[in-house]
Parts: sequence; structure tokens; C-alpha cells
Amino acid sequence: MERAPTDWPRILRPRSVALVGASGREGNPMARPQAWLRDRGFTGRVLPVNPRYDELGGLPCYAALADVPGPVDLVLALVPADRAVATVEDAGRVGAAAVVVFASGFAEVGDEGLALQHALTAAAARAGVRVLGPNCQGLYVARSRLFATFTAAGERPLEGTSGIAYVGQSGAIGGAVLDVAASRGLDLTAWVSTGNQADVDVTEVARVLVTDPDVRVLAMYAEALPRPDDYVRLAAEACAAGVALVVLHSGRSESGRRAALSHTGAMLPDTAAFDLVSREHGVVLVDDVEDLLAAATLLRTQARPAGRRVAAVTSSGGAGSLAADRCADLGLDVPELAEETREKLSLRIPAFGAVANPVDVTAQLFNEGGGAFGEVCALVRGDPSVDAVLVILTMLVGDTAHALAVDLAGTVAEAPPGSPPLAVVWMAGEDATVEARAVLREAGIPVFSSLAVATRVLAAVAPRPADPASGDRVDLPDDGWAALGALGVPRPRSVLVRRAAEAQDAVHDVGGTAVLKAVASGLEHKTDAGAVRLAVVGKDAEREAADLLDSVPGAEAVLVQEMVPPGVELLVSVDGGRGGWPPVLTVGRGGTETELHHDVAHALAPASPTTARTLLDSLRCRPLLDGHRGAPPADVEAAVDAIVRISRAAAGRELEVNPLVVGKTGAVAVDVLLAHPEDRP
Amino acid sequence: MERAPTDWPRILRPRSVALVGASGREGNPMARPQAWLRDRGFTGRVLPVNPRYDELGGLPCYAALADVPGPVDLVLALVPADRAVATVEDAGRVGAAAVVVFASGFAEVGDEGLALQHALTAAAARAGVRVLGPNCQGLYVARSRLFATFTAAGERPLEGTSGIAYVGQSGAIGGAVLDVAASRGLDLTAWVSTGNQADVDVTEVARVLVTDPDVRVLAMYAEALPRPDDYVRLAAEACAAGVALVVLHSGRSESGRRAALSHTGAMLPDTAAFDLVSREHGVVLVDDVEDLLAAATLLRTQARPAGRRVAAVTSSGGAGSLAADRCADLGLDVPELAEETREKLSLRIPAFGAVANPVDVTAQLFNEGGGAFGEVCALVRGDPSVDAVLVILTMLVGDTAHALAVDLAGTVAEAPPGSPPLAVVWMAGEDATVEARAVLREAGIPVFSSLAVATRVLAAVAPRPADPASGDRVDLPDDGWAALGALGVPRPRSVLVRRAAEAQDAVHDVGGTAVLKAVASGLEHKTDAGAVRLAVVGKDAEREAADLLDSVPGAEAVLVQEMVPPGVELLVSVDGGRGGWPPVLTVGRGGTETELHHDVAHALAPASPTTARTLLDSLRCRPLLDGHRGAPPADVEAAVDAIVRISRAAAGRELEVNPLVVGKTGAVAVDVLLAHPEDRP
Repeated sequence: MERAPTDWPRILRPRSVALVGASGREGNPMARPQAWLRDRGFTGRVLPVNPRYDELGGLPCYAALADVPGPVDLVLALVPADRAVATVEDAGRVGAAAVVVFASGFAEVGDEGLALQHALTAAAARAGVRVLGPNCQGLYVARSRLFATFTAAGERPLEGTSGIAYVGQSGAIGGAVLDVAASRGLDLTAWVSTGNQADVDVTEVARVLVTDPDVRVLAMYAEALPRPDDYVRLAAEACAAGVALVVLHSGRSESGRRAALSHTGAMLPDTAAFDLVSREHGVVLVDDVEDLLAAATLLRTQARPAGRRVAAVTSSGGAGSLAADRCADLGLDVPELAEETREKLSLRIPAFGAVANPVDVTAQLFNEGGGAFGEVCALVRGDPSVDAVLVILTMLVGDTAHALAVDLAGTVAEAPPGSPPLAVVWMAGEDATVEARAVLREAGIPVFSSLAVATRVLAAVAPRPADPASGDRVDLPDDGWAALGALGVPRPRSVLVRRAAEAQDAVHDVGGTAVLKAVASGLEHKTDAGAVRLAVVGKDAEREAADLLDSVPGAEAVLVQEMVPPGVELLVSVDGGRGGWPPVLTVGRGGTETELHHDVAHALAPASPTTARTLLDSLRCRPLLDGHRGAPPADVEAAVDAIVRISRAAAGRELEVNPLVVGKTGAVAVDVLLAHPEDRP
Repeated sequence: MERAPTDWPRILRPRSVALVGASGREGNPMARPQAWLRDRGFTGRVLPVNPRYDELGGLPCYAALADVPGPVDLVLALVPADRAVATVEDAGRVGAAAVVVFASGFAEVGDEGLALQHALTAAAARAGVRVLGPNCQGLYVARSRLFATFTAAGERPLEGTSGIAYVGQSGAIGGAVLDVAASRGLDLTAWVSTGNQADVDVTEVARVLVTDPDVRVLAMYAEALPRPDDYVRLAAEACAAGVALVVLHSGRSESGRRAALSHTGAMLPDTAAFDLVSREHGVVLVDDVEDLLAAATLLRTQARPAGRRVAAVTSSGGAGSLAADRCADLGLDVPELAEETREKLSLRIPAFGAVANPVDVTAQLFNEGGGAFGEVCALVRGDPSVDAVLVILTMLVGDTAHALAVDLAGTVAEAPPGSPPLAVVWMAGEDATVEARAVLREAGIPVFSSLAVATRVLAAVAPRPADPASGDRVDLPDDGWAALGALGVPRPRSVLVRRAAEAQDAVHDVGGTAVLKAVASGLEHKTDAGAVRLAVVGKDAEREAADLLDSVPGAEAVLVQEMVPPGVELLVSVDGGRGGWPPVLTVGRGGTETELHHDVAHALAPASPTTARTLLDSLRCRPLLDGHRGAPPADVEAAVDAIVRISRAAAGRELEVNPLVVGKTGAVAVDVLLAHPEDRP
């Protein structure tokens, strides 16, 4: 359905807000928006609409939207679900830009509610207004003092200075982010809950917010996967605007469960394309509400690390050791520091400390004061082998803690732009370190409460270099073998015979010894079905072919194929793009045990040779290609070339080669399946 | 070295504490113990010792320990490292039970310090006193008002009511645990830092603390692995005393790195035996300081779950979905609730909520009040398909939050003993929910700040049932094949020949077709070395045997073995017990690619048939045994029997069978290695 045109400034910086169904009842959550608009200094007109009152909270109250004098930019529908459509229609008549529908009772309650939601979507389009919600908690925009929400988190005074904005379907998750952030001195700059998304969705709001100069990080929570095209645009726009995009996507486990393990194609989780697109565009993906805020806290002031090498600086050898353990779990490196750095550190750190990484400065350095700790952190941060610095503090209170915070804050202020990010883990009660934490926060140094969160965040923001999808896609004929030909993937010499009598000549044509395979539509696991005969020589060819045509259900022909010398068996497939997402390339260990190995890697297709090599390098079976246990090395370059070629399969076609046999020289596709993705259940 | 006898009551509940090197300087951390002993109500005698003062803090100060009148139970050595030995000797002369050595400058600074530490250990034994430290932060015991520490965390008033005790090498980690716990209203009951452990170690202290009736949970932090025998005793004693033992062990990643991947035996991390012993004895292992406290917080009031089935109750569908994702990541189930439960829930939950698991009660239920939320939680907790309940709250403030806390607290109080544990995740600023959190804490309901922590803790405390090691160990002869004979593990018929001329008869003896293997000491990967000839028939036997004896370096003989029909190849090994830990059994996918598969599982040896079956079931390659892709099913019972038999290998011997070939009937050990663990680098 065509959406109504949108005037976002009138929504985010409205000159007037009408509250339809405004309540005067004490304690009614629906009374909050009006009170907050007044108390938080909203300078536009506030227009309560409710036929039961002449006046509400000191303002004139109107019987209907049509009675409101002057233009209305934004309408808050504080009415039950059954009056939402009428309110949208009324809003259209007075020329409002948007209606926020708070009520629940729509798609989340079943078929009847879904019908009502469809009616709401249609009404919005007809009336030419946008709808936020239903079943949402509204929005706030700090700069325009617009508190059009009833989330209890709004009870805090909010200045909006953090540079962090939130958009998400869930107002509850959003309320948690807002409130926890505020309790740590980080007032969100903007906050939008999109609820059931009958019209406006998370991605659309996000695209608006990333262009807001007040926003440096956008924290986004999505239950439904975003629409692929919009999401790619959002990621590109965020990148162009220098806004970090941090995304929490829920409901991944169920989709993971749905993915059956019995077929290799199904080993690709539904979210693989989303994850790959995110990685390619530098979107930070996180797994927990706490991490969403933690990553945003880091990125609002610190650069993203250039790599995965972490240095830890601590006064506790134990904490350093635990940090190294967590880094190892998450695939972060804890490298040796440069010789030069270690020499300089040894002049500042007592003998019973450690100048290795993790750096143990000893508690003595804190007690001494005088800036030595800040110097150590600056030295480590300037080391060329370090991409991020984790400063781990344990129990410090009072003057010592404050002096240390001032010392660290000075260090960070002096660091050149683009320095590796520096974050603090402070394992102490927040109440006993409030002032010191505030000093660090003011200096833009993020403080986390646990090693687990800090290391997860560093792992999430660290780059995972991905060559962008590259190369042209190739249109494919309907036959799998012909498709390989079109792509230029080496195949065994083959002859298709429809009658057993032709088999002997065919075997001769392909080299004297052949593999015979029954051809039947819908036949996937040929070996299991007894549809493959290996090493057939000319004299046995007719008998074996006849037997195949006779015994394999639906067999229409027999493929007579050249025997391929043994090699390393890989799986290479492209999924054709699902649900509008770009095609995903899968490379993994092939053969009949593919699904037992769980040894696969993914990239967006088409893939560059670099990407193909990276995928191969990430497989557990990689050593097989180098010549495992005395076997000759396989032709990796031929495998890379075949992978690149297969990855060029046109979107809309699902192509699976298993096995791609990588021999001493060359890589040959020995079996192939070609389908339209829609053919799959 | 023989330890001095120990009188723990005199250490933990001393009637007198002497402070050698007591300081009067304002702000000196070494002045803290005396001040705190006074301020916190220690009722024993406090005896400052320092020749520079006649009086300190209002107490008479003595020139030397020998001058102190009356008995001295505990000595705090607030002196530099070079005076520690003399202080211990002095303490022995006055009959003190123990000396706490705070100074650093011992093993942590290199060889000279290590020598000093050895001198300290020796002095303690000679003087007949125990030493805590050096390089430690001392101890506190709430009940005896003993604050013999200078950790800044001690600045808080501490009542010791939580039932949680901490013991760890690190005072810094300990300070973090103490302080964060206190900031959440949980005052630790006892707290001990053992530092460099020149004498007393973590396990010894832990064994004392688990017998303290005030202690319900012992949180233990260990950098060095504990001594195996002591640790097993500790675990058994904790269990007998009904005290939950939660252990954080650091430095695991480095040991993981050391483990080379090139040999199957080395795939066993150093900590496998520790982990298995912990699991068998119900010890809870955690990975982060935050989790150490979080698990202790749960277990101080709640029962351990009986299984891994978690129900989530929330007012936010999004939070429920995220919780389900995290549970799936951690191997926790989120089961369907019983029909009866769902029916009852549907009477209480609005239509736009969900009676499935996660249960979405909707915010309306909170706003309604009246105990409906508590009823819902009680219903879910009483469901027979639920082992633990996670209540997830987002933003709630003021009266609503308080009413909800009271409601939940009532529910928990009414639940029968042994009910599934119930924990709350409250995603809101702590400051805005202080009172409600206190209500929950008083009721014994743990409150966590993130889904990540809460789900990790539930995964850590959930049982992983392990059959205890069972069965007798079998003494082994020095030859691998003979060892298999002693254990009763089926082997191929074999004849060892030293001369090629004997090979033909040998092939005939084992069935007419044989495998020939060169026997040479130190030869491990026979296939790679060209030391194996397959399917040799009688007429070729002499030539092949001669060739092996000729071409394989160090070949002394040729083993002529019956051809074993193909089957599923497993690896089965026992490591003989390392460093005093019990032997560990490893079962995994075998064959020449074992180290590529990383498909192994471990248990303590000897193993029961149940354990053997569980190990097989946990392998990725398990479907191979059921007959994968049309292959016949393998004889799982024969594999189980062979595994059980191999697991009985005597301690001190490392035995590896690879492959154990599991055929349609029977399982046969086709190759074997036997070594003393000390033979390994």
C-alpha cells in the first residue's frame, strides 16, 4: 500500500500537539503526556481534546479535533483501539502530519485485532497521515522538549545530552534502555517506540534519526527483521553521517530451531543474510539489552577499534587473567606489547607488577598518584600492536578513586583523534564511586560493571573485515549442469543417456570408466537412494544403466560421468536471496557427512577471491587442503576460482554443489542441485 | 614440608590480635586494621606493636611481640617483606596461631622474592604457626567483628547477614565481590584473601568456612588449580554441610593455548579433570566476577534447579523473546507449559498477552495490581515442566514497582520448600527501584540487572547429571595390545613377526587377508609414515613385510592383523590422571582426521555404561552410529562395552585407542598407544 507523504520535522519538532482522549484522572498513565509536555518545557501548543472537559490541566479542552483552532502537527491518540481509526480520519481532516496510537488490541490479540490493524493502515493512507503504533509507547525528542510518551522512564528529568538515540518496536525494552542510561548519567537524545508498526517501522525512524546532528549513536531494537532494502539504505546513511548503528535483534533462537539440520541448505539460519549485510556495512550487532546500551556508551565518544587486539591495564593480576580468558573466548587477541612500550613501562611500574599484556601496574601506582597510571594507559594506548585498551579497576574509593579518574580523564583528553578506544571496567559498588565515574563520563570514558560486558562489547564493535560482494551475476539455464557451464565451473565430462543401450558408448566417450547416476526429479540424496554406481567400465555399462532406470523411482535418464580423481570434498552453495535479502554464499566441508560436520562459513554473493579464501581459511577442515597427514596438497586456487564462479549465480536461483572435489590440480563439481528458492518448503 | 598444626577458632575468632608494624599515620592503609577493629566492635584485645610509639589510637603500644602481655592468637604483620620471616619467628615464640603477611615482594617479583617466600614457608613450619599470605589482603569474619584487612571495601559497615562467604587468592577480586555485594545490600559473612599462598591456600580456608553455620554459599576464586585431593574433600564437605560452592578459576585461556592441537591427547585441556570433578560434586563453575556474585546471590536463598527447563514470565514480549534466545545459546530449554497451567493462566492474563512460555502477562496486570502477577508466577513455578522461573521486569517505578515487589515476595514466601528457583531480571535504573529491590531481597528473591547474567547463572547452577566414576581399575602390562587383552577389549587376531619370511604363515593364521603394520618405538601416526599395508594376501606377505622392515625407520617387527570390516571409527582414550587429578576418559570421532573434527567428550574414568552412552550421545558424529545416509546401524552396545573397559585402565597409564571400529556387530580396537603420562612433553 502507498504510504502517506511524511513531514518528519512536523512530527519530531511539532508546533502543536493535540491529545485526543486526554485524561484528567490522577494516576492514569494517559494523563502523563500532557503533564510532561508542560513540565519539560515543550514550547509548542498543547491541545487536549475530550468532550467531557472544558479545561484540563489549566488548558482549554476541545470536544473534537475539528474544534481545535489553528494547525495541528501531531496527534496523540489516547483512546481505546476501537476509536483509533476514527481518530486517524479526524487527524487527516485537520491536516496533521502523524498520529501516535498507544492503544493495544491490534495484531497482538489475533485475527480480529489484525483486521483492525489493517483498517488502521488503510485509514492512514487514505487520510494522508502517518501512524506510529499501535500498541506503542510513543516518542520523545529532547531538543524539542517533546515528551509524547507515557513510559514511566519519562519521570526522570532528561536533558538529551548523550548523543544516543533509541528506536525499537518495544517500549518496554526502550524504557529499560532509557532508564538504565539515565541512571548512569546518559540522557538519551531521542527515543521512539514503533509498536506493531502498522505504518511507520523501526528502520524508517532510524533513517530519520541518523541525520539528526545531535545523534552520534543509534541504538535500534528490532523484533521483526527489517525490510532488506531499507536496512541497507539505513546502514549506508548512518555510515555517511558518521553515526554508529548498534542493533539488537530478538527471536533468533526460534528461527534457528526451525532450521532443519537434515538438509545442507537449511543449515543456513534465516538471519545469515541480515548478519552479513550488517557486517559489510559496519553495523554493530549485540545480543542483550545491556550490551545495546554498553556498545552505544562506548561508541558515543570512542572510535571503533581497527582490529581485534586488546590490551588490558589493571592493578589486579587476577582481573587481568580473567580478562585474557574472556578475550580468548570471544576471539579477541591479547598481543605482546612492543619492545619499546615494555621498556618505557618498566620505568614506571614496580618490579612486582607486569609489563606484559595484561599490564599489572600494582596498587602501589594508585597510592602513589602523580599521574603515573595515566601515563601507563597512554603508553599502552599508543602501542602500534594495540587496537583497544581495557582498564580494569577493582576496589578504589574516595580520594584515590577521584585522583585516578582525573588522571585517566586527562590522558584521554590528550590522545590524538582516532586513538584506539579506551574503556574502563570498574568492579566496585556504583554508589561508592559515583563521583569518580562522573569524572570519567564527562571525559567520554565509558565505564562498564563487568569484564563479561566489556569484552563482549569490544568483540561486537571490533571489525570483521569483509570484502564487499563484488562481480556480476550470471543468468542461469534451468539445468544444474548447464548452469555450471554458464558459470564456467569445471564439471566432469558427461553424457546423458535415456536408454540403457546407449550407456556403453557413453562410458567410452568419458574415458573408459565412469560414474552412472540416475536422473529423477526431486531426487536429492542420490547415494542413499542407491542411484549412483561407481567405477563402471564399458562392458558393464548397459546392465548397470538398465538397473538404475528400473530400480530408482521416477528415473528418466542416466548421467554417465567421467571418474574424478579423489580430493578434498567441499560444499559450495548460493541461496538465491531470500525475502529480498541478497544471496548468501555458503562454503563448507562437503560429502555425505556435511550435516554432521557443522563446518560451514557464509558471505554475501557474489564473492571476491579474497572472500573465498577467507571462508576456506575459517573452516575446521582447512588443513585437509594443505595435505593432511601425508596427503598431497590440494589446488586451493582452483577451489577459490570455483567458489567465486558459483557465487555469481543469479539471484532467485538456489545452486548447491556437493561435492566440489578439490584435487592435486583443479577443482571439479561432481554433483549439483539447482532450484528456485520458492520450491523449498 | 610438614605444616604447622592449626587452631582455626583462634584464627577466625581470636581473643587477641597483635598488629606488628602498626601505623599512626593518617591515610596509611596499614593504619586501617587497627581503626576498623576498634570501630567495628571487635571485643578481643587489640595489641599494637611498634617501637616508635608508646601509644597508638588510644591503646598501649609495645616495642616487640615479646613485650605483649598475655596470650596472642593472631598476628597481623604490617611490615615490609624483609621483616616477615622475623615476625613469624617472633609469633611462634609467643604462641600465636597464625600470622597474616600483607607485604608484597615475594614470589611475584622473581627469583629473589621466591627464595624469600620459601624462607617464609619454612619459618612458619619451624615456628609452629600458620601463615596467611604473603601479598594478601587479610581477612574479615563478620560474627567475630574481626576486620584484619586493609581492603578499601572494608570502609562500608558490614553486618555479615548474607550467608555468602568469599575466599580467593586475590584481594582485589575479593574487594570487588565484597563491595558490589554490599552495594546490593548483601554483606558478606566472611572474607579471606590468601595471596601468594606460602602456607595456607584457598582450598584449606574453604574447607573451614563451609563448616561455619553462618555460611550458606561459598564463593571461591582460584588462580592456581587447587590440589586435587583437597578439592575433592572440600566439594564433598560442602555438599554434606548443605553449602553451595561456586568457583571462579582464572588463567584458563593460556593453558588452553598451550594445549597443542596436533595430538589427540593434547585436545584435552588441562582443566578438564578439574571441571569434571567439579561437575560430579555439584560445584558451580562460573567465568566472571559478576557471575560469581550472581550465582551466590541466587543460591543463598533458592534451591538449585532440578533440570535445565526455564520458564520466563514478563510484561514485555520483546524481553521474553530475548530471554528465549539467550536460553537457547546456553543449552537451557524453554518448554511448553502444561495444559492445566495454561488454562489457569488464561483466566488471569488479558487476551493480548501470552500463556505460552515465555509468558507475557502484559503491563495491564501490573497496573491492575491485586496480586494477579504473583498468582501467575506461582502457577508457573508450580508447573511440573519447569525447573526454574525467570521473572523479567522492565521499567516500573514508584507504587507500582513496590506493590509488585510485595506481591512477588508473598508468592515466594508461600511456595513449598524445594520449589524451583525464582529470580528476577529488572531492567531499570537501580536508583529508581531501590525500595522495591530491597523488598525482593528481604524475601530472598535474587534480582539481576541483565538477561545475560541471569541466564548464564541459571545455566551454571543447572545440573549436568554425571554418573560418578565407577568400577575397578585394571593393572596393565607394558604392551598396548596386551593391555587391551587385560581390559577385555576386542582386538583383531594378530601375529607379531620379526622376520619377513614368517609373514605368509601369519597372514594365513589371521584369516587369509591381513593388515601389516610396522612396529617401531615412538611411531605414532603409522598411516602417515607409510607403515601400514592394507588387504595383504598370503602370496604378497613376505615382500610387503620385508619392505616395511626395510623402509620404516626403526622398524623392529611387523604386526600381521586380521582385516576388520569397515565401521564407524571412534577415538577412546584415558589420560592416566595428571597432576594428581583422577584419570579422564575421552570419547570422540576417530580416524586420521580426529584433530580436525574437534568432536570429543570427556568424563571421569572409570566410566559406567550410562556415562559411556551419554558421551556418545553428545558427539556430533553420533548419527553415524545409527546408520547414516543408508549405512547399516553400528553396534552401539559393543562400543559402550569397549569404552567402559578402556576407561578401567589403571591410573598412571595413558591409553589411546584410535580407531575403535564399531561395526554392524562388535567393536574392535584397531590401533592402540600405551604410555606413561610422564613420557609426554
